Amino acid sequence: MGSNLLLNMADAGFAAIGYDLKPERGQALEAAATPGTVVKGVNTLSELVLSLKKPRKIMMLVPAGKPVDDVIASLLPLIEAGDIVIDGGNSYFKDTLHRVAYLHDKDIHFFGMGVSGGEMGARTGPSMMPGGDKAAYEYLKPVLEAIAAKDGSGKPCVAYMGNGAAGHYVKMVHNGIEYALMQMIAEVYDVLKRGLGYTNAQLQQTFAAWNEGALQSFLMEITAEIFRTADDATESTEDFLVDKILDQAGAKGTGKWTSQEAMDLPVSIPAVDAAVSMRQLSVYKKERVAVAGFYNEVQPVSKKDAAALEAALEGALQAGYILAYAQGLSMLAKASEVHGMNIPLPSVIQVWKSGCIIRSALLPTFEQAFAANASLPTLLQDAKTAQLLQPCVGHLRTAVSLSVQAGIPVAALASALTYFDAYRSSRLPTNLIQAQRDFFGAHTYQRIDKEGVFHTEWQTNAEN
Amino acid sequence: MGSNLLLNMADAGFAAIGYDLKPERGQALEAAATPGTVVKGVNTLSELVLSLKKPRKIMMLVPAGKPVDDVIASLLPLIEAGDIVIDGGNSYFKDTLHRVAYLHDKDIHFFGMGVSGGEMGARTGPSMMPGGDKAAYEYLKPVLEAIAAKDGSGKPCVAYMGNGAAGHYVKMVHNGIEYALMQMIAEVYDVLKRGLGYTNAQLQQTFAAWNEGALQSFLMEITAEIFRTADDATESTEDFLVDKILDQAGAKGTGKWTSQEAMDLPVSIPAVDAAVSMRQLSVYKKERVAVAGFYNEVQPVSKKDAAALEAALEGALQAGYILAYAQGLSMLAKASEVHGMNIPLPSVIQVWKSGCIIRSALLPTFEQAFAANASLPTLLQDAKTAQLLQPCVGHLRTAVSLSVQAGIPVAALASALTYFDAYRSSRLPTNLIQAQRDFFGAHTYQRIDKEGVFHTEWQTNAEN
Repeated sequence: MGSNLLLNMADAGFAAIGYDLKPERGQALEAAATPGTVVKGVNTLSELVLSLKKPRKIMMLVPAGKPVDDVIASLLPLIEAGDIVIDGGNSYFKDTLHRVAYLHDKDIHFFGMGVSGGEMGARTGPSMMPGGDKAAYEYLKPVLEAIAAKDGSGKPCVAYMGNGAAGHYVKMVHNGIEYALMQMIAEVYDVLKRGLGYTNAQLQQTFAAWNEGALQSFLMEITAEIFRTADDATESTEDFLVDKILDQAGAKGTGKWTSQEAMDLPVSIPAVDAAVSMRQLSVYKKERVAVAGFYNEVQPVSKKDAAALEAALEGALQAGYILAYAQGLSMLAKASEVHGMNIPLPSVIQVWKSGCIIRSALLPTFEQAFAANASLPTLLQDAKTAQLLQPCVGHLRTAVSLSVQAGIPVAALASALTYFDAYRSSRLPTNLIQAQRDFFGAHTYQRIDKEGVFHTEWQTNAEN
Repeated sequence: MGSNLLLNMADAGFAAIGYDLKPERGQALEAAATPGTVVKGVNTLSELVLSLKKPRKIMMLVPAGKPVDDVIASLLPLIEAGDIVIDGGNSYFKDTLHRVAYLHDKDIHFFGMGVSGGEMGARTGPSMMPGGDKAAYEYLKPVLEAIAAKDGSGKPCVAYMGNGAAGHYVKMVHNGIEYALMQMIAEVYDVLKRGLGYTNAQLQQTFAAWNEGALQSFLMEITAEIFRTADDATESTEDFLVDKILDQAGAKGTGKWTSQEAMDLPVSIPAVDAAVSMRQLSVYKKERVAVAGFYNEVQPVSKKDAAALEAALEGALQAGYILAYAQGLSMLAKASEVHGMNIPLPSVIQVWKSGCIIRSALLPTFEQAFAANASLPTLLQDAKTAQLLQPCVGHLRTAVSLSVQAGIPVAALASALTYFDAYRSSRLPTNLIQAQRDFFGAHTYQRIDKEGVFHTEWQTNAEN
């Protein structure tokens, strides 16, 4: 990814220098440069630092954790007050906060910057989420805007995301939404395949068709691609690669961090929680196979239900998408306030509109919602979002209800729906939970009809 | 709670000394003692420590966090090598681990001990979960066994839970299960009230009747009590207190810690996650009221559905209970291995059988399951648990499906069901997630037909 970002910068007219311990990587970088662009590969840090104009702008692309601190320690003797160091990896935002403070004491500007778009995106235009010192961002802005993905109207998909660790925070939540969307797509795939018996050709056609409508998004696009990818590892040309892939999910931690942090804020993002949980459960393959022997009861979907289910899935997924974004964006709204990060939500959405994994045709509506009301606590209070969501909620209801009956686990879609139904409940049954807590633990409760905090000796009060 | 534990100890024939900064508390303690028992109240720590036989056994009951460290700091100059200090609060297990190590260096045995049962239980018999040095536990055992709740066969509900922070860890997971059970009960209440129009009298009768069957449990019992408790704060004798309680849940953090820690292990406990998430969402009352105005569409439950829903709820809740315990116990099994705590699962369940908030008639079956197979990864692989769960799964399916159609958010019940359906899936759609991750991020995948780690250049592989 580092090489591709550098080549992208060079193409945009900037002189770019890449450092890697291995000399062959530097040579490969230079060989890959577009003729006429200025790209150099070096294998000592001093050579890198000495070649840069001040204030130096140095971006790291190393694995999160200790490697980031190691590179910072190696750079510190070489760089000077006013220089800018950017961490372009998926670092945990609390680590970034520590590094910002540590380097601030040395007058070094540290930026945590989320980069989305994968290796390909890095070359052709990534979506970038930088956070840190606002004044120092002015030095980065021309380069980042030049290399960023552009949205439909040509606006670059990079913007200042706020102070402190805001950049890595926004990227973390981006990934949390990504987990939820991927899990929902996988659930719909499960319903289509196990429930309705779709072939890969039908799956490809379905996702490709949906990608022409309201669900138009990068994840729809690659999902359709996946269902037409042959398995090169076998002789048969009839085999599809997707069927040969083990059903155990990997994870780098950003989804988990999103859920854990949401619980600390606190804000409710159950579709992300469900996606994290289901990835983790997938790894228990041996146990799943054993349990499948005990409870072998997937119900075939009846003809009548199959038609209703099939008709509901596109709308259900659209509702799921909207609710996943709503959860992630409400988390950013709350986090901005709790952590004092000043995250500009319309800019966040602008940055996500192209280049990144969660880009989708729904984003312009969300951008308008927060542009019109910067303090909107949730998209569910936005009228235009309601126009998109309202017609799909019934489909989500049908899809979840029939999948539940068929025994197909639609955890994230169900969580999105129960979240919606809870959010539109002015009165929840939580009064009972408060009564129970006061009953057994004297935890007290509040009342609907007067101010204050109350405790009741429940057993003596019960009518006999 | 501290006073009640001391009075309980004194009743069991032990001399007990209580320390509190406030002299009136010591006097109240002495006044409350059963005639003929030895109970003393003091208001200096040195008086407390000097009065105790060696090795001293000192239990703290102070709020989690800094107060625990403050008391430890005050005790340290007074106590000696070999003494035992017990933290009986709901401390975070990672804090307990630090304290165990810190005091181990000073030859002080530190025990984290979960205590469940509330103030009343402390007096009449709590459930206790102590963890720490196994040899030192022998000094505590006689006292703790004497004051503990007793199960149906007279066995005390206290046992050594393992080393390190095992005691607080087990209590944390106990509370996680408690969150899930309380949320499920609240969801059934919501269905009965908003969906089926039950009065408090009907609710009381329903929960009381269920408490006579397979659902027999402390939480059923107090829930029935709650629905017959009048509101003393108003003139009308027709008003029930539960209807006056604000629907915003409080929380002390143990449920959240359980979910966050489960994600780190990792192990999947989505019913607990949903309970945490719904408590947190409940607090957004202002936003909920606003959103309710946008999406006012709770469907009345039709007569036909109402009968099916009503018939399904008891079995649905029973399935939900079993799946909540299954999630919590699988977490303890995994944690015992990951953290090397050596948690004896049959003892954990024995301790939960009486005195604690999650005691229920289901526990003996679970105890037998782990007694027969100490390395059982999940209750879902136990044949006798399957006999309890299998007949209820259909009810859970019906209840979730119809509640979803009616627009009533049954988040924890739905999470329990999708967890079950995922667990009994030998093949999940996670292969698609792995394909997507490899497509956009070159994260690699494993195959079902050969060993190794693979990466595909997806776009070039797609058939054209």
